[in-house]
Amino acid sequence: MSSKGYLLKESDLHPLSLGAALLGTGGGGNPYIGMLRTRELIRSGHEIRVIGLDSLPDDAFVGEVGGIGAPVVGIEKFEEGHECYHAVRAVEEAAGVRMSALISAEIGGSNSLEPIIAAAYAGLPVIDGDGMGRAFPEVQMTTFFIYGAPTAPGAIADEKGNVVVFRKVVDMFWLERFARDAAVAMGATAGLASAPMTMEFVRRTAVPGTVSEALRIGHTVLDARRDRRNVVEAVLKVTGGGLYFTGKITDVRRELTGGFARGHAILSGIDDFAGSEARIAIQNENLVLWVDGEPKVMVPDLIVNLDLDTGEPITTEVLRYGQRVAVLGLPVHPLMKTEKALAVVGPKAFGYPELAFVPIAAPPAPAQG
Amino acid sequence: MSSKGYLLKESDLHPLSLGAALLGTGGGGNPYIGMLRTRELIRSGHEIRVIGLDSLPDDAFVGEVGGIGAPVVGIEKFEEGHECYHAVRAVEEAAGVRMSALISAEIGGSNSLEPIIAAAYAGLPVIDGDGMGRAFPEVQMTTFFIYGAPTAPGAIADEKGNVVVFRKVVDMFWLERFARDAAVAMGATAGLASAPMTMEFVRRTAVPGTVSEALRIGHTVLDARRDRRNVVEAVLKVTGGGLYFTGKITDVRRELTGGFARGHAILSGIDDFAGSEARIAIQNENLVLWVDGEPKVMVPDLIVNLDLDTGEPITTEVLRYGQRVAVLGLPVHPLMKTEKALAVVGPKAFGYPELAFVPIAAPPAPAQG
Repeated sequence: MSSKGYLLKESDLHPLSLGAALLGTGGGGNPYIGMLRTRELIRSGHEIRVIGLDSLPDDAFVGEVGGIGAPVVGIEKFEEGHECYHAVRAVEEAAGVRMSALISAEIGGSNSLEPIIAAAYAGLPVIDGDGMGRAFPEVQMTTFFIYGAPTAPGAIADEKGNVVVFRKVVDMFWLERFARDAAVAMGATAGLASAPMTMEFVRRTAVPGTVSEALRIGHTVLDARRDRRNVVEAVLKVTGGGLYFTGKITDVRRELTGGFARGHAILSGIDDFAGSEARIAIQNENLVLWVDGEPKVMVPDLIVNLDLDTGEPITTEVLRYGQRVAVLGLPVHPLMKTEKALAVVGPKAFGYPELAFVPIAAPPAPAQG
Repeated sequence: MSSKGYLLKESDLHPLSLGAALLGTGGGGNPYIGMLRTRELIRSGHEIRVIGLDSLPDDAFVGEVGGIGAPVVGIEKFEEGHECYHAVRAVEEAAGVRMSALISAEIGGSNSLEPIIAAAYAGLPVIDGDGMGRAFPEVQMTTFFIYGAPTAPGAIADEKGNVVVFRKVVDMFWLERFARDAAVAMGATAGLASAPMTMEFVRRTAVPGTVSEALRIGHTVLDARRDRRNVVEAVLKVTGGGLYFTGKITDVRRELTGGFARGHAILSGIDDFAGSEARIAIQNENLVLWVDGEPKVMVPDLIVNLDLDTGEPITTEVLRYGQRVAVLGLPVHPLMKTEKALAVVGPKAFGYPELAFVPIAAPPAPAQG
């Protein structure tokens, strides 16, 4: 990509949100409402430019934004649309700087579109990259915070007009705590903007190219569907992932506690996996996949459930008894697998002290074709 | 009082905190730690000037401060001391103004001393008055908010270095919600500073003269004790209150929920009240006194429990079985009894829809002497 980047077209939005939903690993919220809003913005004349990490001078400021809340709530309580924009403006005011571009905290799910919408309102470009390369449930779980981004001033805004600024915050865990509490008070959906980062820092720490990657995955799924090819195989090929289970959902437990959707899904194996049972642990996103009691894929690697018939990514909030799904494991970006990163996003950080992170490597059931 | 006011002396601090504890109506937190801190500040050379509502030009800015949290926690987790000062500085920065003086959100309990401590650090005078004329459990329950003070920018700070700014807040109830959640996250004790108010506004809306009133009540109690006179009678005389019950505590229920101490106390009558039973409802402060099922004193009027032997005010967190107490009712300031005020601090606002506010009038058992 040239340093001038490319303009998002209306025809990009469906594949982008499809690819983002897949990278959401079951969470990140459904991007459908954000897609409709972005489409309206493009139709009403807003230009949305995606620029590469080689763009902008080192000392330009970049704003990280994302929606915060429980995806389960996001289905029924839509954002008003300006939440992240208002949060960015509050950060600019508190920090006394102007942003030159915005970047997504997480490419997975609806947060792929949040910076795009805020950037359209602000007349800023969005950077081709993000802070996770997937979705994660908590604020501190970005490459930015893991590698030392300033924790303040950040800001959170809701659709009612409330804006709360985190002016000084001891560390990223305190930021998560304050932001989560405020988001719950705001009704479990709100827009969060983090402290300004320099472009020099973002170049070193962002997961690169993930807007384009989501677009590429989305196009792959849509092309395979149109050509009546096997969607799962096409996705494995484009992502370098592996098929770890195929099964029917026999049990789903899900509850909304402390602003998170927590629970698990149990799957009974079919096809090559007949006679086996799988369990997937969930905190907004899919955390760990066990097959017959053995951990097979675990955070930070991606666990993706695709509908076996349509190839549609199945998010946590729509999991239900009887669905037939392919469970894919995709390797996360190396920036998320360092010792520093695993301390924040590895299995232990999610409450599985018995699991030492084992990255997925070669696909166990390689795609044909 | 002249417009230059008076300097607080070390010898004022004991009577001031005693009077403030009494006006705390069972809540507001114990002023003891704040008294020790203020004494150190005076001993180390800080001048603390108390100025009247006739001071300062109309367009001077006044900052309202107070500790926020559950008094029960405040016993064991002391404030570091700079919480309110840091909150005031954050408000000044967010609003782009400098304060000319500070005023207490509530004169009752430890918040009588919070603005004095912050003012000493900031080198500012404190105003002789407050926003309650007593103590109340929630942020919006001040004459300032009731009569239209701006709800933003406010700020909350803790002892760890966290500072959260409420940059835009829809109304005072949202401010209470955000501030309460942040205070709970901060460990249930924190310093809160509200948006700058003009002196013209404060002159119209503050409960006047309450720093001096607390001093006067404290001196009265100490003088009566020294002279071995009846403390309860002396307090009734100086406050214009009445004696509504005398009894022994037979039951105390108290739990910490959502940052508040909630519960009730049951008293079995002695002396003139032998054979009667009283019940006092509590949310940090004493809310309603029933005697034999009949409501006798209710918010916003003050319900004060004094130790029958020492005349010491008994706060919610030290109520216990077997204590012998005099239950006094003191009339609240007229600014707290208007229709506007009762909507925020009347019995209905505290969850007693069946109680229409009846102000206390003539003392039912007049003090002799």
